[in-house]
Amino acid sequence: HCIVLHTDCPSTVRGLQSIFQEQEMTETVHDTEGHGYLATFIGKNDMQHSKYDFSVFSQLLNALEKKLKSLLHGNIMRVKRLPALTRGAAVDRYWPTADGRLVEYDIDRVVYDEDSAYQNIKILHSQQFGNILILNGDVNLAESDLPYTQAIMGRGKENYTGKEVLILGGGDGGILAEAVKLKPKMITMVEISFQDATCHFPLWPACGSVLDNLKGDSKIPEPHGGT
Amino acid sequence: HCIVLHTDCPSTVRGLQSIFQEQEMTETVHDTEGHGYLATFIGKNDMQHSKYDFSVFSQLLNALEKKLKSLLHGNIMRVKRLPALTRGAAVDRYWPTADGRLVEYDIDRVVYDEDSAYQNIKILHSQQFGNILILNGDVNLAESDLPYTQAIMGRGKENYTGKEVLILGGGDGGILAEAVKLKPKMITMVEISFQDATCHFPLWPACGSVLDNLKGDSKIPEPHGGT
Repeated sequence: HCIVLHTDCPSTVRGLQSIFQEQEMTETVHDTEGHGYLATFIGKNDMQHSKYDFSVFSQLLNALEKKLKSLLHGNIMRVKRLPALTRGAAVDRYWPTADGRLVEYDIDRVVYDEDSAYQNIKILHSQQFGNILILNGDVNLAESDLPYTQAIMGRGKENYTGKEVLILGGGDGGILAEAVKLKPKMITMVEISFQDATCHFPLWPACGSVLDNLKGDSKIPEPHGGT
Repeated sequence: HCIVLHTDCPSTVRGLQSIFQEQEMTETVHDTEGHGYLATFIGKNDMQHSKYDFSVFSQLLNALEKKLKSLLHGNIMRVKRLPALTRGAAVDRYWPTADGRLVEYDIDRVVYDEDSAYQNIKILHSQQFGNILILNGDVNLAESDLPYTQAIMGRGKENYTGKEVLILGGGDGGILAEAVKLKPKMITMVEISFQDATCHFPLWPACGSVLDNLKGDSKIPEPHGGT
């Protein structure tokens, strides 16, 4: 276990040292010549196991916070503890958004993980959202997203009965599965990265089994320019 | 800027040193006696500014990844880079879930931040979700959540016209605002932590202005056991 501490004030670092010494942590202080201090503390060996770690670590942070309040005479604007990052876990819980924000999901298992000719396809199970489809690392669709699919389709507002429907994209099959229920005359779906595995996958209830049971003409081009 | 590197293999740490040396980074290696190595590298002063940082940092990580692939003969199971955590920013973007998962929102401004007799009340603006209500650090409701409110109410399925409605909780006023639109005979709302500020707040369109324009009997108890 290691704690990295940045501060502008060397006396603050010195004031905190006793807390780390009580925990028998090894310490290194780097002076960055006027740009603050960086102190690194490493725990002793018996702090390596995660369950024990958590309570010890939490106590350590409580002690640090209390000491800091005293050293800074209560003059603290904000104290915030973020959940610890889990590095190197067997099941990856971090799936940042397309705009680069860090998001941790309650993923408990990998349902599917394969590279297709077009992209990496993952289906991960989340306790909150059910199965989540992740394409090339981008979260695409979760089982719990059915209300969104229905909202996109204007369900309840738009009458599909007997009409011709064109779906551009929609490769996960969710919109197709919903559209079929609304009795249109004909559905045409154009999808450039259609994959066997993407959605007519048995563990993917949000999309239904429509792509497994295609009727009518289907033209599935070969990868890389074939017809 | 600082990079902390854990590894079980001291020769790997040594193999990576040249990359840090090229960046003129100061290095400290801690040997944790059989429990891995911890290497800390601190950047030079001109790496302090965030915009410059990002590209330099990204190049550094590219170089490290390339070197690691070579040192480990391509025998790498997974490479994952998480977005950098922003520490000490003026506007806090991290609002972990109630079950302790780390989530970063695209918060761009603080709309409201006050302590009431019951709790801390924050309204933060997110580009994606609009205004978000945060009570004691827990994300409660966002402007974009109107479809959820409607789903909870069984909108489109449940007929409210002329009925008596009981709302237990619902202090943000969102359900009340929606229920009023559906012409019930009478709404009774029981809420223990009702606050002036929580939701009849002008910048909170998701809740409507119902709580600003209460008609009928309202009994608002005093904090801490008053009547």
